[in-house]
Amino acid sequence: MEDAEIAIIGLPIDATGTGRRGADLAPDAIRIASDLIETYSPYLDLDLEQRKIADLGNIQLIPTNWINEIEAKIREQAQSNRKIAIFGGEHSISIPVIKVLSQKYLDLKVLVLDAHTDLRDEYNDSRYNHACVSRRIAEIVGWQNLKLAGVRSGTGEEFKSAQKFNLILNINNSGLKKYILEIKDHPLYVSVDLDVFDPGLMSGVSVPEPGGISYQQFLTLCQELRESRLIGFDLVELCPPVDSGGNSAVVAASVAREMMLLL
Amino acid sequence: MEDAEIAIIGLPIDATGTGRRGADLAPDAIRIASDLIETYSPYLDLDLEQRKIADLGNIQLIPTNWINEIEAKIREQAQSNRKIAIFGGEHSISIPVIKVLSQKYLDLKVLVLDAHTDLRDEYNDSRYNHACVSRRIAEIVGWQNLKLAGVRSGTGEEFKSAQKFNLILNINNSGLKKYILEIKDHPLYVSVDLDVFDPGLMSGVSVPEPGGISYQQFLTLCQELRESRLIGFDLVELCPPVDSGGNSAVVAASVAREMMLLL
Amino acid sequence: MEDAEIAIIGLPIDATGTGRRGADLAPDAIRIASDLIETYSPYLDLDLEQRKIADLGNIQLIPTNWINEIEAKIREQAQSNRKIAIFGGEHSISIPVIKVLSQKYLDLKVLVLDAHTDLRDEYNDSRYNHACVSRRIAEIVGWQNLKLAGVRSGTGEEFKSAQKFNLILNINNSGLKKYILEIKDHPLYVSVDLDVFDPGLMSGVSVPEPGGISYQQFLTLCQELRESRLIGFDLVELCPPVDSGGNSAVVAASVAREMMLLL
Amino acid sequence: MEDAEIAIIGLPIDATGTGRRGADLAPDAIRIASDLIETYSPYLDLDLEQRKIADLGNIQLIPTNWINEIEAKIREQAQSNRKIAIFGGEHSISIPVIKVLSQKYLDLKVLVLDAHTDLRDEYNDSRYNHACVSRRIAEIVGWQNLKLAGVRSGTGEEFKSAQKFNLILNINNSGLKKYILEIKDHPLYVSVDLDVFDPGLMSGVSVPEPGGISYQQFLTLCQELRESRLIGFDLVELCPPVDSGGNSAVVAASVAREMMLLL
Amino acid sequence: MEDAEIAIIGLPIDATGTGRRGADLAPDAIRIASDLIETYSPYLDLDLEQRKIADLGNIQLIPTNWINEIEAKIREQAQSNRKIAIFGGEHSISIPVIKVLSQKYLDLKVLVLDAHTDLRDEYNDSRYNHACVSRRIAEIVGWQNLKLAGVRSGTGEEFKSAQKFNLILNINNSGLKKYILEIKDHPLYVSVDLDVFDPGLMSGVSVPEPGGISYQQFLTLCQELRESRLIGFDLVELCPPVDSGGNSAVVAASVAREMMLLL
Amino acid sequence: MEDAEIAIIGLPIDATGTGRRGADLAPDAIRIASDLIETYSPYLDLDLEQRKIADLGNIQLIPTNWINEIEAKIREQAQSNRKIAIFGGEHSISIPVIKVLSQKYLDLKVLVLDAHTDLRDEYNDSRYNHACVSRRIAEIVGWQNLKLAGVRSGTGEEFKSAQKFNLILNINNSGLKKYILEIKDHPLYVSVDLDVFDPGLMSGVSVPEPGGISYQQFLTLCQELRESRLIGFDLVELCPPVDSGGNSAVVAASVAREMMLLL
Repeated sequence: MEDAEIAIIGLPIDATGTGRRGADLAPDAIRIASDLIETYSPYLDLDLEQRKIADLGNIQLIPTNWINEIEAKIREQAQSNRKIAIFGGEHSISIPVIKVLSQKYLDLKVLVLDAHTDLRDEYNDSRYNHACVSRRIAEIVGWQNLKLAGVRSGTGEEFKSAQKFNLILNINNSGLKKYILEIKDHPLYVSVDLDVFDPGLMSGVSVPEPGGISYQQFLTLCQELRESRLIGFDLVELCPPVDSGGNSAVVAASVAREMMLLL
Repeated sequence: MEDAEIAIIGLPIDATGTGRRGADLAPDAIRIASDLIETYSPYLDLDLEQRKIADLGNIQLIPTNWINEIEAKIREQAQSNRKIAIFGGEHSISIPVIKVLSQKYLDLKVLVLDAHTDLRDEYNDSRYNHACVSRRIAEIVGWQNLKLAGVRSGTGEEFKSAQKFNLILNINNSGLKKYILEIKDHPLYVSVDLDVFDPGLMSGVSVPEPGGISYQQFLTLCQELRESRLIGFDLVELCPPVDSGGNSAVVAASVAREMMLLL
Repeated sequence: MEDAEIAIIGLPIDATGTGRRGADLAPDAIRIASDLIETYSPYLDLDLEQRKIADLGNIQLIPTNWINEIEAKIREQAQSNRKIAIFGGEHSISIPVIKVLSQKYLDLKVLVLDAHTDLRDEYNDSRYNHACVSRRIAEIVGWQNLKLAGVRSGTGEEFKSAQKFNLILNINNSGLKKYILEIKDHPLYVSVDLDVFDPGLMSGVSVPEPGGISYQQFLTLCQELRESRLIGFDLVELCPPVDSGGNSAVVAASVAREMMLLL
Repeated sequence: MEDAEIAIIGLPIDATGTGRRGADLAPDAIRIASDLIETYSPYLDLDLEQRKIADLGNIQLIPTNWINEIEAKIREQAQSNRKIAIFGGEHSISIPVIKVLSQKYLDLKVLVLDAHTDLRDEYNDSRYNHACVSRRIAEIVGWQNLKLAGVRSGTGEEFKSAQKFNLILNINNSGLKKYILEIKDHPLYVSVDLDVFDPGLMSGVSVPEPGGISYQQFLTLCQELRESRLIGFDLVELCPPVDSGGNSAVVAASVAREMMLLL
Repeated sequence: MEDAEIAIIGLPIDATGTGRRGADLAPDAIRIASDLIETYSPYLDLDLEQRKIADLGNIQLIPTNWINEIEAKIREQAQSNRKIAIFGGEHSISIPVIKVLSQKYLDLKVLVLDAHTDLRDEYNDSRYNHACVSRRIAEIVGWQNLKLAGVRSGTGEEFKSAQKFNLILNINNSGLKKYILEIKDHPLYVSVDLDVFDPGLMSGVSVPEPGGISYQQFLTLCQELRESRLIGFDLVELCPPVDSGGNSAVVAASVAREMMLLL
Repeated sequence: MEDAEIAIIGLPIDATGTGRRGADLAPDAIRIASDLIETYSPYLDLDLEQRKIADLGNIQLIPTNWINEIEAKIREQAQSNRKIAIFGGEHSISIPVIKVLSQKYLDLKVLVLDAHTDLRDEYNDSRYNHACVSRRIAEIVGWQNLKLAGVRSGTGEEFKSAQKFNLILNINNSGLKKYILEIKDHPLYVSVDLDVFDPGLMSGVSVPEPGGISYQQFLTLCQELRESRLIGFDLVELCPPVDSGGNSAVVAASVAREMMLLL
């Protein structure tokens, strides 16, 4: 525990969601589903059993104060050299996490994989709504340090903002690959909103959107990330109540394995 | 619409829930399910078609300001002579509704049907959490004007409070019946947390608790309420995502029919 | 097969249903579920293994001609002395079945267990809609030869008709028991719309209605039927697509066992 | 409403289906699911908010007379210049719709996206069964004015007919693209049987068939249709009871958005 | 941990089941569901927080050697004075548990609550099949020390055996109550096959059987057990894959709470 | 029956599974689902109606003796010239089947399509666990006569073994195609663990693993197999309890159709 190089932290909160609720149940669903998969990745030829990993469990969060609580807990972890693997929770949890990490790693880059632009300034009267996440992150790390990939849903205005700041990288051409190479010496945080995947594969998310990335595309991205300085990641927006049969949780656990092996 | 005697108002919010989420989907689920039942009640020998009912649809609510919004909307309705039928939403919606009605009807009595005491002063840092509803209601209308029935879950401390204030009426003996007779000249609001029913019948609620009342006991209560001055009611805590098959919504629609016929 | 005393016939049709569809899948669902129960009934102290039963499978039915096809098939069976056990299908299948049997057994009595009056003359432009079943049966066997039990839903007009013809027997007092005694020398056909049961127990039916009979009440009825001249029965309106987990099919199979032992 | 350029019409009927029932529930399921997606399409760079759209709700249909009723209603709409967006219902609803439109637009072309040939002359004794749809359409508009795409299931005889009349276009090569260019000056109606999509993505259809088109292929088709004279379309065969979690309804709503933007 | 007075042990095995599988998932399902209920029982006016309870987690079991492994683990626990609460698992797990306890408590009485007689000598070639549990228990503790309650399914032969040995107590009359009084000075182990409850309430069990006991009857039994020397109990046959919505796990957790308070 | 050229045999057993159980329900699920698809394959331009096929039903299997029973039954079938189509059941059923066939066809080749290496020598104390299947097969037919395709999960050690024996063929390049050509004169048995497909398409399997083959890749393989001497195949690990909506069973039935047409 003391000498762990990776800390897993569950952030079980669904405070600002609308419609399909239950992202607060995701951290435990991912852990339980990981029993169905191996610790070894044939794609990376690496094994989680060779890593020192401490699962710190879930942080108890309450709807009225969750941002401060996450910030405090991550700040505590940031004092060590551990890399962090976050299991959300709704996407808004990325905001306080990245706030802390951006103070620790001054030249932090953030890559958000998401079906949605999430660039609204406010939604449902809240600036911390899960529809505002990428905007908040951009304000924290600077627009030039944020990139989005897998985006395919938003308002016309959001897409105009994204274009203005050159935020969106195309996952199908070499855009994303080039960018990863370019920033390989920077500390990198990857926020994976699981709705970036096609809902055919990942049906159990809060807000599904057709036309998403395939698992093969994710595996290609993993290869591209091998040389990066990945210092943390989160998996968010898995929604167990709509994950009939539980396969989305299994895929999320597989994504978590690859990402942890890249840390 | 203008001359309606009953207004149906949907309050689609699940702001403070934990665990099984989705009470915000309940108002429309109840409306859709009502297609499967008749408008006539053989128990009361009354027909909804003979009542003037306006369904005002759902009030758009946002997690950060819902209490004020509900209060404003109900205050608007309270200016007419219409009786109101509320389809929640989580139980906390009863608080602003009863606040407004208690100002209109000075000697208002409130009967809460609920599996849970809901007498905590605060839960998850919030005084408006659905675990605090009955306490907030008691503070609004006065402890002597609130009664609970169907209660079978709470902390030891909550049960002590309930006993101290003589809050809980026994639905199996004549306690509830006598009380209804006793207050029959007072305006009465009934808040129906659907988890008061046994989860065998009403499986799709946010927090199920075995040992609940049967539909027959509810029908008996309806007979007892025939002479009452019922001025409004709410149905809360139906949770469509866990209502496999949709039967709980049908039962909720049946409960709504009886209650509206009693208005 | 030749010397069977009971013929099981599946009538897989859902032609006139609205809303929750799938009663056509019920016959096979009941057969499959019967694997989970024993052939021996401790209530009747009788065993299906001591009866000669031929399962004739399902009759292929098409929505445009099903009434004639059922009639033809049942007429064929009616030439033998076999008693018949019908697994529906929607409730309308009872109409052609009873038509044939009423010609064979001139003094036939019919008992319909159903949550709904089903006394409409026409529904959705059809006189064979499942909302008209009891009316059609009454026209076939004569109003004086039909009784309903378990009824708790209908229009005000339907209930008036039912009262006029003294159709409804109360299952809670001795009304039903007395009637069964009274007609014990007549051939009797029992049509069991499974929605007569409480939806807490029997959730997977096309049109659920709270306040239904318990399994214990059904078992009491079985005791009362022991001296009757039961010559056939049907089980209708099981709706497998809304029978999450499949328990309603198991209960239906249990009901089928008791009824077959009474034949 | 008066000056709407697009009319949405729901046709909630599942009259001839067999097996997995419930296409009658689809129109409302699509509407409800559309809450989860944006009105703006980044693929077409167009926004539904800039179109004048009137949702006319659902037409009440009864199993015995639905063809005539649909025909009458569409005939009424056809008197305006509005384009129409139909939410079925089973596929047979296309027959009366196209009948009316072929009388209004004399040189109408019809493109059917469907996993199944649907070229039977009769099925279950009915010429209006959903297995006969493409044949009926061909008889209405003429075999030379009908093309099918996405087809991968049928009898050997049906495939021979399709070949004889050169009905099937290959969606993977340039066949479909060329055809759309070729007929771009003709009024065009597109009938989308949602089972044309791969069941991995669109699991909630009445009759799933593996090997279907991807969402990317649908988006490519949309680009090809931009220059067409699209005058109407329908979405049929969504089957909510087997749409666990509700994702197929969300994808159907996304398909509806793109198609409406192309009108 | 050292001074715990109650040990919870999970036995996640479904080795001999047929049909509805998944009892091996029950121990964790019960633990997770316990989050939805309070620790205080208003029925017993006792609180789990005032007891010293150690949850020892699940024992890893493999299908080929599970009987010996359970026996070894329970033997280890039996050396302390802790009482034990077992979360199964299929019913067969009771056999090795009771074997060990009967060696520790020489005059041990066993009460099995079960819908099924489970008195077969062998089933599917195995003497440890879950259909043989009560017979094996009787052989271990002696037929005179075993009683069954809630039984309503079995073969004719099994019921004859049960009668011969006077095994079955009637839960509806005073039979069970008298017996509990009579043996109140003996150490008592209660094995709760959750299918003893009515499937209306407890739908998620491996083999449902209508006509089961109500929650109220269970609560009455708990009152009767207050004076007993209860030294352990098990809860078996919860089957999470058929527990749609998860209510059966919540009821099982409620049953566990009452039983633990009685230890 | 006597002159059938293909025998379908159901092996309904889930004896060694862990986690998601229910593969024993698969044979009937596949049969029922086959009603939703045609008998004609447009890919192969062949029709099952032109083949003589005998469905021998399911073999009753018990957990303690299933290996011997399968072996005996297959041995009986092997005396005829019939080719066999096996519907499992868990994957371990392939072991006794291939044992018998390898004695009949001395130069038998085996191709296993599977997401998992299944090369463990023992798992959960059993050498017949479904995690050991490919190893057992290799021991029966010789390592040089076994190939795996679609593999993407295993321990590091298993992948080393696979490499050492050159077991894994790449389904994406020409590796598999070349091999099939190379062995086209040998009798060939194909074991299809349905988890070889991507869980997006085939969600209802015991152990899902993302990154699987598409239906298009399967169809390509079928084309390559047209010239082979296929003498039998099995479909295993379909898990109906997690097959929400039942689509995986439909896809399995489609796979079965193509494979039977190749026999």
